[in-house]
Amino acid sequence: MSGWLVVAGLGPGAEHLVTPEVSVALAEATDVVGYIPYVARVAERPGLTLHASDNRVEVERAAHALQMAAEGRRVVVVSSGDPGVFAMASALFEALEARPEWQALDIRILPGITAMLAAAAAAGAPLGHDFCAINLSDNLKPWALIEKRLRLAAEADLAMAFYNPRSKSRPEGFVRALDLLRETCGPDRLVTFARAVSTPEQHLRTVTLGEATPEMADMRTVVIVGNSATRRVGRWVYTPRSAG
Amino acid sequence: MSGWLVVAGLGPGAEHLVTPEVSVALAEATDVVGYIPYVARVAERPGLTLHASDNRVEVERAAHALQMAAEGRRVVVVSSGDPGVFAMASALFEALEARPEWQALDIRILPGITAMLAAAAAAGAPLGHDFCAINLSDNLKPWALIEKRLRLAAEADLAMAFYNPRSKSRPEGFVRALDLLRETCGPDRLVTFARAVSTPEQHLRTVTLGEATPEMADMRTVVIVGNSATRRVGRWVYTPRSAG
Repeated sequence: MSGWLVVAGLGPGAEHLVTPEVSVALAEATDVVGYIPYVARVAERPGLTLHASDNRVEVERAAHALQMAAEGRRVVVVSSGDPGVFAMASALFEALEARPEWQALDIRILPGITAMLAAAAAAGAPLGHDFCAINLSDNLKPWALIEKRLRLAAEADLAMAFYNPRSKSRPEGFVRALDLLRETCGPDRLVTFARAVSTPEQHLRTVTLGEATPEMADMRTVVIVGNSATRRVGRWVYTPRSAG
Repeated sequence: MSGWLVVAGLGPGAEHLVTPEVSVALAEATDVVGYIPYVARVAERPGLTLHASDNRVEVERAAHALQMAAEGRRVVVVSSGDPGVFAMASALFEALEARPEWQALDIRILPGITAMLAAAAAAGAPLGHDFCAINLSDNLKPWALIEKRLRLAAEADLAMAFYNPRSKSRPEGFVRALDLLRETCGPDRLVTFARAVSTPEQHLRTVTLGEATPEMADMRTVVIVGNSATRRVGRWVYTPRSAG
């Protein structure tokens, strides 16, 4: 039996946002590996072993998946959203860098609908012009670098999508981010808080930066700050295609 | 009959990257509207009218779709990739802004796999840390603004994904963009040219900025420039999750 490893994006939550490519990989897998809530989205069946693990062990999880593929198993590492956006794909390559003998394995990354694009679609089209995606967690980078990026993105007048805006353990970062954005973008700039998009718990709210409070976000929220031209039309928010 | 309008992302090209949500909308539609090559991806069937139009008439196309939905038809406006990323969703809201009486219509935006994420998955994980997405076409914004954004994105050490890098009519922009990037990011920075991702014509090439030439891109190419930590591992290119 020839093993393989797939890193698959399950999309933001709804079944109808899982690509057929990912569904086929899951149907052919012998093993599914991932963070507990993502593995819970995969249906159990005979012949499939589910390996759920906790957060913050991404490289160990990736190494475990590679080891199983090297032993001939068909392994899917599941990510929420898209595996290449603040998810498991980079952790996989970090593990692969440490173990060159695994680089000859059959490895594929399967894209998925990432949270910011599902959130943007639900809200309208706030990312319809140039934009950036920034992970606000300072687990893996210094907070000063996050602030620097926010200032430069504001100066570039990019719309911004924020992942992991507010952790329970370090909620003060998002307070500072909102202060910085109010200062650089002004209080009238539109910001959309999109929680649990595409799930039954979906909640969307668009306010101005002047109205925004840190409690509007948690770790299941994607935050989208518009650019200087972002505006409301009817019940939607969108960014025009043109600028300057 | 109650009409509706959906703006749907068909993904980068492969059938297996079209979400089930989009497939259902297409199966229920009476009319499909879009740019010629995207409408060509929708199978003809009795009861479905295909309305293919040329490029650069996005707002007129959106108004036509809204008009048909107002008349009770079930209309899908198709975009390549994700409709909210340099595609039809913003044009739809521009049309809607001009005609408030259409704002009460049943309108939904359905996300899709956007080209940069399919390209990133095919190449590895070059967008695995903070990144930006910039449309290099200067049809709808001044070239000076593009250059400003490139400089600021480089200063922020963001990875960058470029859409519409090189038009036939104005190829000189991409020459200047590459020069600017070589100057600000240095000649060793990795850049991936991903053409026609997920189609039979898919072609991927990763080189350094020092090696990159404008001819490596055309309008079917997404270009991904890594950040300062982006590197190769085996046959892949990836950006580590950590920085600073």
